[in-house]
Amino acid sequence: MLTSSSLKALSGIVGAENVLTAREDLITYSYDGTPMLDELPGAIVRPTSAAQVSAVMRLANGDRFPVVPRGNGTGLSGGSIPVTGGIVLDMSPWKRILEIDTENLTAWVEPGVITAQLHTEVEKLGLFYPPDPGSMHICTIGGNVAENSGGLRGLKYGVTKNYVMGLEVVLPTGEVIVCGGKTMKDVAGYNLKDFFIGSEGTLGVFTRILLKLIPKPAASRTMLAYYDSVEDAGRTVSAIIARRIIPATVEFLDRTTIRCVEEYAKIGLPTDIEALLLLEVDGHPAVVADEAAGVEKCCRENGAVTVTVAGTEEEAMRLKTARRSAFSALARTRPTTILEDITVPRSEIASMLGAINAISAKYGIMIGTFGHAGDGNLHPTCLTDERNKEEIHRAEQAYAEIFAEAVKRGGTITGEHGTGIAKKKFLSMVTGNDSIDAMRRIKKALDPNGVLNPGKVFDAL
Amino acid sequence: MLTSSSLKALSGIVGAENVLTAREDLITYSYDGTPMLDELPGAIVRPTSAAQVSAVMRLANGDRFPVVPRGNGTGLSGGSIPVTGGIVLDMSPWKRILEIDTENLTAWVEPGVITAQLHTEVEKLGLFYPPDPGSMHICTIGGNVAENSGGLRGLKYGVTKNYVMGLEVVLPTGEVIVCGGKTMKDVAGYNLKDFFIGSEGTLGVFTRILLKLIPKPAASRTMLAYYDSVEDAGRTVSAIIARRIIPATVEFLDRTTIRCVEEYAKIGLPTDIEALLLLEVDGHPAVVADEAAGVEKCCRENGAVTVTVAGTEEEAMRLKTARRSAFSALARTRPTTILEDITVPRSEIASMLGAINAISAKYGIMIGTFGHAGDGNLHPTCLTDERNKEEIHRAEQAYAEIFAEAVKRGGTITGEHGTGIAKKKFLSMVTGNDSIDAMRRIKKALDPNGVLNPGKVFDAL
Repeated sequence: MLTSSSLKALSGIVGAENVLTAREDLITYSYDGTPMLDELPGAIVRPTSAAQVSAVMRLANGDRFPVVPRGNGTGLSGGSIPVTGGIVLDMSPWKRILEIDTENLTAWVEPGVITAQLHTEVEKLGLFYPPDPGSMHICTIGGNVAENSGGLRGLKYGVTKNYVMGLEVVLPTGEVIVCGGKTMKDVAGYNLKDFFIGSEGTLGVFTRILLKLIPKPAASRTMLAYYDSVEDAGRTVSAIIARRIIPATVEFLDRTTIRCVEEYAKIGLPTDIEALLLLEVDGHPAVVADEAAGVEKCCRENGAVTVTVAGTEEEAMRLKTARRSAFSALARTRPTTILEDITVPRSEIASMLGAINAISAKYGIMIGTFGHAGDGNLHPTCLTDERNKEEIHRAEQAYAEIFAEAVKRGGTITGEHGTGIAKKKFLSMVTGNDSIDAMRRIKKALDPNGVLNPGKVFDAL
Repeated sequence: MLTSSSLKALSGIVGAENVLTAREDLITYSYDGTPMLDELPGAIVRPTSAAQVSAVMRLANGDRFPVVPRGNGTGLSGGSIPVTGGIVLDMSPWKRILEIDTENLTAWVEPGVITAQLHTEVEKLGLFYPPDPGSMHICTIGGNVAENSGGLRGLKYGVTKNYVMGLEVVLPTGEVIVCGGKTMKDVAGYNLKDFFIGSEGTLGVFTRILLKLIPKPAASRTMLAYYDSVEDAGRTVSAIIARRIIPATVEFLDRTTIRCVEEYAKIGLPTDIEALLLLEVDGHPAVVADEAAGVEKCCRENGAVTVTVAGTEEEAMRLKTARRSAFSALARTRPTTILEDITVPRSEIASMLGAINAISAKYGIMIGTFGHAGDGNLHPTCLTDERNKEEIHRAEQAYAEIFAEAVKRGGTITGEHGTGIAKKKFLSMVTGNDSIDAMRRIKKALDPNGVLNPGKVFDAL
């Protein structure tokens, strides 16, 4: 339990100026990007070194108070929601890019570095860090690693875990370890590094992160295809992959999302179409030319009513920015936005989109769906009002059914947002209970007192 | 302990015909590809279903006998060496490719499928499974996953873990779980799948494996560059990466290896040069043309005395096959071959090669070095005779020093062969003791009785 003596000890570790207990501070840290979840922490603690994080964890084990690590709090499953009687470990001030190694194509960063800032810095050197979560202008690399965040370029380039080469981690019991390094291959001992990735702040606190960079693609082309039917858009995605083309980006927006985006961003999207695909191919100029032609052919052969190619880099950027605004555009329309991120095998996209529409109609709720169609990751987004308990109840029933339909198709309940608190009760649908039992046993082995972000992902033993 | 009643129970589970106890069978399974290690098992057990593997594990927990899973026994760190009083679980008969899904670009395979056979089958469909360990014509996918095997194409395409999308695993305590699936993104719960990869048969037995496939590169070009100095070859590798070219393959052979390969394969390699690089670029024909020109330029600018481009597919294959014969070619020259696989950051290759030569001279032992220079993974191979205890002792001292030099450069003691028994005592040099303690705690959590491949990677608590 966090007592006044714990608070005093915390001040001793990080300095009194780095322990916040004023009510307005506690409220600021009481929620993250997830709707309808909040909890007041006992204090906000800002460590400034791995040794301080270690000392905080040892104190937490001694005094038995919960510690919830946090970056910029953009999470969408409640992973950084405080735990009553515990502290928030605020890693957001850890903003330094420590090294960009142009010979080994790596970067050491602190966990509070903003994802888009890293993009900017490495691209100045002709390098590329592909993961680009929707929130990349505000989210942190530490949070990306904790959630194994994806983004728009996942189909061709993979997700965060594909770019983490090393981690400095403070274990729940306070030991500071380093896993991985600048070698491209390393099989010495168990693969702890990849196990920490996506562990949602429950197995360790990241204090330094070594990322893999790749050469920046020399060219790219962005295209937009409009459809009168959602199924045609889904079939287009399958046809592109069947042609052995792996675009960097294949984004899908349904009618509801298109209308909201157009109303918000005013970029001239037609509001009478059923779906659009935003596609980007990149790489060597000759590859881009060939693949763009192939993609255009697939769109037309599968019922696209219009296919346009962005003429300039600015136009391409405007289209991509509009897509990135989808969540905000939808969020404006009603007081509460519930954003989900089921993922299905690519071959199941068209059928899954059909199922979402049917479920939305069945429960009489408004769902706009957009997402990363290329990798099967869809964001059915419910526009509702949390004050309307009855409507929220219908939305919850609808989501339970959407999750079941995704799992039935070989899919998962979360492609990039994590399990957190929000999806805990659905986890066994995907993993089965024996897997959760194995996860629990590992959590207990590494965090015997259950002090690090307890109650997230699954309930304790 | 494995008793006669355990053997009877095993026969009851898998059928008497699938329990081998004849001395000639036990001897056949007493060793793997690692020199100077062998141990006689109590029995060889051949299960034919996941349910049987589960029953065997439950029996092992009840009777407390060790179980060592094994594919084709090509491992190079002793991971599949039997444990006294235990059984070998022979998974090599599990040879079926269960499904190749051309729409989602995945393949479900059984663990006993030979890696090169999978290559052949998927390439017939225009697809590509990149991991290509040196032993690919005999090793199994199950073993590749257990060791997280690399190969010649690691630089551009990554290693086995980058291609495993799902696993059916029998836990040490007998539960059968499935992790992952055909979705490109999945963050539901902890990343158990990636943790099992490279766990060297100590955390679970794989009964089905879901692999990611990619489109087969449309073109490729193979080049050979000769050098009068090892450092020039090392600098060439850095120069290529600095040009933002990522070749599929950059293989290095030193003078000793070149001579042995030429004597063995008679392909016309000059035997008076100090080093050679075998390079391959692949992809779209325009990319191949550009990158091949860039690679050639880098070779010439960094001191290559000759650069030749393979004129035909057959010639390219002959060169690559010769490279693949390096281990066999070296192994012919003396009775015992100790093959190591340190890995250093790319920028350290030239300096590491210098250190290996100095250490080899210091201890008066014969070391031929070849390896995957592009990803910093080197195979310093000691040619010795295990009957000469004094020489073996010097070789061991030399390796301890080579490991220390690799770690000093930010490298690791094993890039793709695993820790097993052979490198256990060096593990803490790379990971530190706190990491090993965390690994031990997890092993204990999943295998409380220590029955699954005990004593590998690290000693039990």
